[in-house]
Amino acid sequence: MDDKIREECGVFGIWDSTREDVAQDIYYGLLSLQHRGQEAAGIAVCSSTGPRGNLILRKDQGLVSEVFSEKDLSGMKGNIGIGHVRYSTAGDSTAVNAQPFTCYYQKGTLGIVHNGNLVNAEDLRSMLMNHGYSFQATSDTEVIQQLLARMRSESRSIEEAVKRTVSYLEGGYALLIMSPRKLVAVRDPLGLKPLCIGKTKTGWILASESCALNAAGAEFIRDVRPGEIIKISKKGLESDVSRCSEARAHCVFEYIYFARLDSRMDEVSVYRARFRGGQLLADAFPVEADLVTGVPESGLTAAAGYADRAGIPYVQAFYKNSYIGRTFIKPTQKERESAVHMKLSVLEDAVRDKRVVLLDDSIVRGTTIAHLIRMMKEAGAKEVHVRISSPPFLHPCYYGTDVPESSQLLAQRMSTEQIREQIGADSLGYMRLEDLDETVDHIPLCKACFDGIYPTEVPEEKPAEKEN
Amino acid sequence: MDDKIREECGVFGIWDSTREDVAQDIYYGLLSLQHRGQEAAGIAVCSSTGPRGNLILRKDQGLVSEVFSEKDLSGMKGNIGIGHVRYSTAGDSTAVNAQPFTCYYQKGTLGIVHNGNLVNAEDLRSMLMNHGYSFQATSDTEVIQQLLARMRSESRSIEEAVKRTVSYLEGGYALLIMSPRKLVAVRDPLGLKPLCIGKTKTGWILASESCALNAAGAEFIRDVRPGEIIKISKKGLESDVSRCSEARAHCVFEYIYFARLDSRMDEVSVYRARFRGGQLLADAFPVEADLVTGVPESGLTAAAGYADRAGIPYVQAFYKNSYIGRTFIKPTQKERESAVHMKLSVLEDAVRDKRVVLLDDSIVRGTTIAHLIRMMKEAGAKEVHVRISSPPFLHPCYYGTDVPESSQLLAQRMSTEQIREQIGADSLGYMRLEDLDETVDHIPLCKACFDGIYPTEVPEEKPAEKEN
Amino acid sequence: MDDKIREECGVFGIWDSTREDVAQDIYYGLLSLQHRGQEAAGIAVCSSTGPRGNLILRKDQGLVSEVFSEKDLSGMKGNIGIGHVRYSTAGDSTAVNAQPFTCYYQKGTLGIVHNGNLVNAEDLRSMLMNHGYSFQATSDTEVIQQLLARMRSESRSIEEAVKRTVSYLEGGYALLIMSPRKLVAVRDPLGLKPLCIGKTKTGWILASESCALNAAGAEFIRDVRPGEIIKISKKGLESDVSRCSEARAHCVFEYIYFARLDSRMDEVSVYRARFRGGQLLADAFPVEADLVTGVPESGLTAAAGYADRAGIPYVQAFYKNSYIGRTFIKPTQKERESAVHMKLSVLEDAVRDKRVVLLDDSIVRGTTIAHLIRMMKEAGAKEVHVRISSPPFLHPCYYGTDVPESSQLLAQRMSTEQIREQIGADSLGYMRLEDLDETVDHIPLCKACFDGIYPTEVPEEKPAEKEN
Amino acid sequence: MDDKIREECGVFGIWDSTREDVAQDIYYGLLSLQHRGQEAAGIAVCSSTGPRGNLILRKDQGLVSEVFSEKDLSGMKGNIGIGHVRYSTAGDSTAVNAQPFTCYYQKGTLGIVHNGNLVNAEDLRSMLMNHGYSFQATSDTEVIQQLLARMRSESRSIEEAVKRTVSYLEGGYALLIMSPRKLVAVRDPLGLKPLCIGKTKTGWILASESCALNAAGAEFIRDVRPGEIIKISKKGLESDVSRCSEARAHCVFEYIYFARLDSRMDEVSVYRARFRGGQLLADAFPVEADLVTGVPESGLTAAAGYADRAGIPYVQAFYKNSYIGRTFIKPTQKERESAVHMKLSVLEDAVRDKRVVLLDDSIVRGTTIAHLIRMMKEAGAKEVHVRISSPPFLHPCYYGTDVPESSQLLAQRMSTEQIREQIGADSLGYMRLEDLDETVDHIPLCKACFDGIYPTEVPEEKPAEKEN
Repeated sequence: MDDKIREECGVFGIWDSTREDVAQDIYYGLLSLQHRGQEAAGIAVCSSTGPRGNLILRKDQGLVSEVFSEKDLSGMKGNIGIGHVRYSTAGDSTAVNAQPFTCYYQKGTLGIVHNGNLVNAEDLRSMLMNHGYSFQATSDTEVIQQLLARMRSESRSIEEAVKRTVSYLEGGYALLIMSPRKLVAVRDPLGLKPLCIGKTKTGWILASESCALNAAGAEFIRDVRPGEIIKISKKGLESDVSRCSEARAHCVFEYIYFARLDSRMDEVSVYRARFRGGQLLADAFPVEADLVTGVPESGLTAAAGYADRAGIPYVQAFYKNSYIGRTFIKPTQKERESAVHMKLSVLEDAVRDKRVVLLDDSIVRGTTIAHLIRMMKEAGAKEVHVRISSPPFLHPCYYGTDVPESSQLLAQRMSTEQIREQIGADSLGYMRLEDLDETVDHIPLCKACFDGIYPTEVPEEKPAEKEN
Repeated sequence: MDDKIREECGVFGIWDSTREDVAQDIYYGLLSLQHRGQEAAGIAVCSSTGPRGNLILRKDQGLVSEVFSEKDLSGMKGNIGIGHVRYSTAGDSTAVNAQPFTCYYQKGTLGIVHNGNLVNAEDLRSMLMNHGYSFQATSDTEVIQQLLARMRSESRSIEEAVKRTVSYLEGGYALLIMSPRKLVAVRDPLGLKPLCIGKTKTGWILASESCALNAAGAEFIRDVRPGEIIKISKKGLESDVSRCSEARAHCVFEYIYFARLDSRMDEVSVYRARFRGGQLLADAFPVEADLVTGVPESGLTAAAGYADRAGIPYVQAFYKNSYIGRTFIKPTQKERESAVHMKLSVLEDAVRDKRVVLLDDSIVRGTTIAHLIRMMKEAGAKEVHVRISSPPFLHPCYYGTDVPESSQLLAQRMSTEQIREQIGADSLGYMRLEDLDETVDHIPLCKACFDGIYPTEVPEEKPAEKEN
Repeated sequence: MDDKIREECGVFGIWDSTREDVAQDIYYGLLSLQHRGQEAAGIAVCSSTGPRGNLILRKDQGLVSEVFSEKDLSGMKGNIGIGHVRYSTAGDSTAVNAQPFTCYYQKGTLGIVHNGNLVNAEDLRSMLMNHGYSFQATSDTEVIQQLLARMRSESRSIEEAVKRTVSYLEGGYALLIMSPRKLVAVRDPLGLKPLCIGKTKTGWILASESCALNAAGAEFIRDVRPGEIIKISKKGLESDVSRCSEARAHCVFEYIYFARLDSRMDEVSVYRARFRGGQLLADAFPVEADLVTGVPESGLTAAAGYADRAGIPYVQAFYKNSYIGRTFIKPTQKERESAVHMKLSVLEDAVRDKRVVLLDDSIVRGTTIAHLIRMMKEAGAKEVHVRISSPPFLHPCYYGTDVPESSQLLAQRMSTEQIREQIGADSLGYMRLEDLDETVDHIPLCKACFDGIYPTEVPEEKPAEKEN
Repeated sequence: MDDKIREECGVFGIWDSTREDVAQDIYYGLLSLQHRGQEAAGIAVCSSTGPRGNLILRKDQGLVSEVFSEKDLSGMKGNIGIGHVRYSTAGDSTAVNAQPFTCYYQKGTLGIVHNGNLVNAEDLRSMLMNHGYSFQATSDTEVIQQLLARMRSESRSIEEAVKRTVSYLEGGYALLIMSPRKLVAVRDPLGLKPLCIGKTKTGWILASESCALNAAGAEFIRDVRPGEIIKISKKGLESDVSRCSEARAHCVFEYIYFARLDSRMDEVSVYRARFRGGQLLADAFPVEADLVTGVPESGLTAAAGYADRAGIPYVQAFYKNSYIGRTFIKPTQKERESAVHMKLSVLEDAVRDKRVVLLDDSIVRGTTIAHLIRMMKEAGAKEVHVRISSPPFLHPCYYGTDVPESSQLLAQRMSTEQIREQIGADSLGYMRLEDLDETVDHIPLCKACFDGIYPTEVPEEKPAEKEN
């Protein structure tokens, strides 16, 4: 649906000692990360046995399957590579912001991909500009790339340059850097953004989510530690944990919505977290009902959890038309007040004369859930009780999650009772803040968008709409 | 997955007294019928107030959203129209077989769309050829179109011509015919192929499935009666039931697999039929287990039914990557024995150490289910008990369902026990023939693909691979 | 430019005893005939050693290079083939009218391509319609195809069927027919439309113009005789001249404009005819001038002829931008009153202070020539004397040449002196009717568009805009 | 043909006080400059009344008409803009090198387009790299852009920054720079690369060639002086001639081949120069012959000049198929030894039994001219005397002209007599070095590719294949 919180990026990197066709694996990896960004995709590869500075880049707007043809991939020879999928806000959806960013510089070539958002990107950009640097794009990532190239000019190795570079960065980031001979990865010191390590027989993989490892035939090894710098070269994997500390703040929204259901992040299963969320909602907001269901796809697992705990049958109550992708739907058609109708339809036989518990992951503007409730009632549902597997959004995110402007956030303007009335639900329950920790086995979370407690310093002004 | 039984077509027609933009509604209708055919799509419209013979046709290979742009649609002015989505076997996937078929003839213009397969198509084609007729395509539909044009030359009205034409046709068909002033619909006398009637404020709609009525903002009126001829003109809807009899044989596979979950056909809810199928499987093949799940999407509803009857929790055990559409997947990659891996992944936390009941709608070659079972076991499932919501395929279909050649049908070569062993299941249960009737409230079914009892005369030879 | 008389089609056929890749040669042949039609292109091939009825067709709107990729061609295996390039009027520029037309019928398959226009197409269409036939397209060619299929059903051979079929046809036509084993060609009895024969080491070629033979590496043998039926099979080339007579009427416009400069038709060199036309204009309309030039490309050869006879230097006075193909040019831009400016520019240094003789092949609406004269004067030309290498258009063509409606023909509304004044020329001379014959060595011509003398019966009404 | 010397770029800039649709004019301008580069095209615009830093860029590989749709252009609002067409060598034909290069930097935004080649590009690149700068592309232009951004950071105005920047540049260049409020242009001090000024009612235009001014409805004002810096702002056009000197060296190849026939550069008409070149060849290498002709298009004007001086008729002897653009031609086809056959054919009636003088602009590898001579002889020409309107290539170009490697230059390996024999000509005459000056009215030329006298310092090594 349209009113969803959106994640920004997925990254994927590979270093292989034997193969020159890693572009193929990156492609599969990016297909598995496509849910993290559908606006642009890109791959860069180089060959560690070739001349320094060999580099092949292809990136463009569109889905992974649209940007790359089989022929494109087979032409991209190299044993080191990085890839990226990107989500962008409308205003910046130009091809120039697609990733990877690659460059030629004093020490050869660099490629970089980035998931996250810097709190101090504008400061860094200004600092570089004051030194005479210029930028072709508006992305944070190009800032990091140029800073890194500069640092590398004054460092003995790419890993040293990375270490210096990240000392400037504030915010959430998962970075992959490809140099002519090495693949380097860094995760922000709080672990706001996810990054994990996989292994194949002949190589190493780094990816935003563990689901992408399977796609490339790799075995999950472990998460990158917050603050850790990983270097992969012909010497194998080396880890620098000098920047690691105990402080952690994993983005809660990865578990609620962003990550893929079959991924595991920081030792917590996304599926378990959502299922557990549903269970906790059942404890907190029980209701007498005939069935539990969820909004496809994001509400289904929490619904199963709710059903499990409440002892009410979990039932599929919507049909989702998977052919409605980017299909245009004329919005002015009277009979069809929104695209929701074309995408989701209620299974009347499932809900007729039934008291329904309906799970969804979040409420942003509230238009979609209101529409679905009305459709359910028209289909004969007697009651519709809404349960939301996240607390109400109340605060902006400075780390890369694209929360709509406050004025569009229902929860900032209305009480829960007012929202319930507006969306037409018979009851409404939001996940309690205190329950969130339990869904993830009490790993330390960043829940700033719900509680306003930011794990880093943040600018005084609300963040402008960003992209990278 | 690849080894699925495939349906051939969906049809949609509209007659409206006031609007010239019915192409828009046909587009929405076809989007809702896209599951019935993804190879080609087409729309033809004409204006009942324009000169006789005005007609605009657009058809091509591809999905509905690929064949039609917003500009295409807005250029197709007319208040009568027909549309079609088509599945075709590889050998005949040329654009010339896309529907609608339209023609200029003695009485003006005709357009025709067709879902189904004629048992005697080759006889009719030969008969016409012997009269000197020639065909641009290899489709049954062109045969019907030419026969109809010929009949119309000797008839007083299009409805009379339709009546004469259909008296030649043997097999299953749902036909929509657009003449300069009228929309005519016919359903085969046994009701093998579905067709239903909807109504908007200013017009009438005919569609393969009721789900397409909602998409066009229409209200469901009733199914077309087997053998009935419907004429819609400025006089409204007129029905000719002279060819209707009591004999009926609705295609069982519509309920098992083809039709959309939210459709209702011949007074039976598709959702109910599948849910009930799961329940009956639970009765027939009970097993001690920890959870019930289904292969997305086709096995989910039966799984819910099984769970409901068996009192075992229904759980989502697979993640489906919805971005893997027509994406190419290099089949030779060693680590990735099939595309199944990219499309479906097992949710480990859901199945680990669990005894699983896995529902699917059918087994054709058996490769996909075997792969899924292996994935489940690798994810830690202790047992995987497979339940199939249809009986084994044993006989060819002459009415349009593309059952693979006998040699590829597992059930023709092996016993159920042998199949169980081959796919690696801990137990295997097929829907019992006698239970099928109960899933559809005992409406009369054609179950020839399972029991070999054909409701019409059929050729002595096995049907060649056909398309229409 | 826009106001040109347009030709309709080019045809190309090949029969080869040894090769299965004749599609490649057809492609080259069609590239050489592209000047005869830029709206659509198509190729059909079959294999004379394959099963009866094998046939591969590909056709679409666009240039030859747009319709066919290298991969398309390599997939079209066959040793017999036909191809077509087509021009169409706006109203009928739908893909359904693209050629070849192919069909499946009683005796196997047929393919047909056609250049020309039937005077009695509507009569034939009605006749067939009255027998119950219907048509998918609005093209004359489909009429011929269906008539031929019908005739073949009652004949012993394709050549007999062709003979019967053409006995119904009135007008101008060059037809190529591909049957499973043979390639048959017919030319209308007056030779209105061109067709010639070429030979390679292992096969035969038939083409609208001799220039297409070179492209396929073939040697020119001779023109097809008016009325002749050529059959090419494994027995070689056989000729049936029973329908040939002495009466001939070759379309004069092939020599003036349609045909390619390096072609030879009915033993007259196109280049010679145009050069000679310029010479005769010099005799008829001499003028004192400093240089002779022509409108590219159509006026250049006549200009050279004029210069040669008049003893005035022939000079290139325009630059033509060959990148302005189908590029859009916003017509409303004030400073740029027409697309002429972008396509042609005057070479100021060539014409400044000069008295210019400007040759063009025809005047239709007069807008382009007026614009060019104004450009020349702005560039400093003292005088511009226009010489047109055809007489004024006064009559419609019934044989396939798309002369604009009378109301748009300058010559029907105005005297030569009025036209001269309107276009801003200092003098104006049209080719004299009596001189036309001399340009083509007195072979018998159809000059009906100039003199109104039609070589066949024609309908009483003016022909509607046609296409084929 | 393939063996041509290739030019690298065309630039176009506009500043208008009243309009926001200058992208339209840039489009027309680039269409007129398309002959200077067919590999990539780009446009950038900004609005001088908008916020600093507004900027819209679109660039891609392909022809101007392929890169820009009407919709693209109408979405590019701005009253200042620059555009570029680019030729590139195969190895670097990636989209990242397409121009304009734009950037965000300390003072807002910059856009830059560039025709030419820097002799010291690698030095500058290294210098910037040593300061920590990195480059996304391999183009000289990005080097200039980054240098300029850096200079601007330390300057009071863009024009001051441009002045400092160009003090670093050695070689040939014509630069257009777009700042948020101004359009700045610079030409190299020797005038190696062309650039001229035009004026419309409300604005100013700068373009590589005067032909592009007409396309945008502008009047030619004058050439930019070598070394001059032009600034256009709301104050109008301002000129800084402080870097101008008397030394000049205009690229001779602009007159011989690169520039459009209707352009005027540095007060010399391209048409006149080529016509005069033909005349001088007639003086230097007279021959008894029946006709003079040229290889289309590049040899036609010299042919006319030769004919004029020699008193021998100038005749068109080739037909050029304008539909063979980027059409693939299978090179392995036996009968068709090269693509020349498809593109050019000899007009037999023009050359049969004739002694022909054949003019072309240059000989690189010699394969094309050899082929054309053979075709002429096969068409019956008795003698073919070749006259080349440039001296033999003997030296590499360091300023941007893509002369093939020495090993492929016929003239470096063979005497004129040997070349004559190899290409099969009856006589061969190259333009004499001393005559070149006369063709351009003795303006100072760079003729280094012929005489090895370079007007600047050049590297000791031969230049690698470059692009920009």
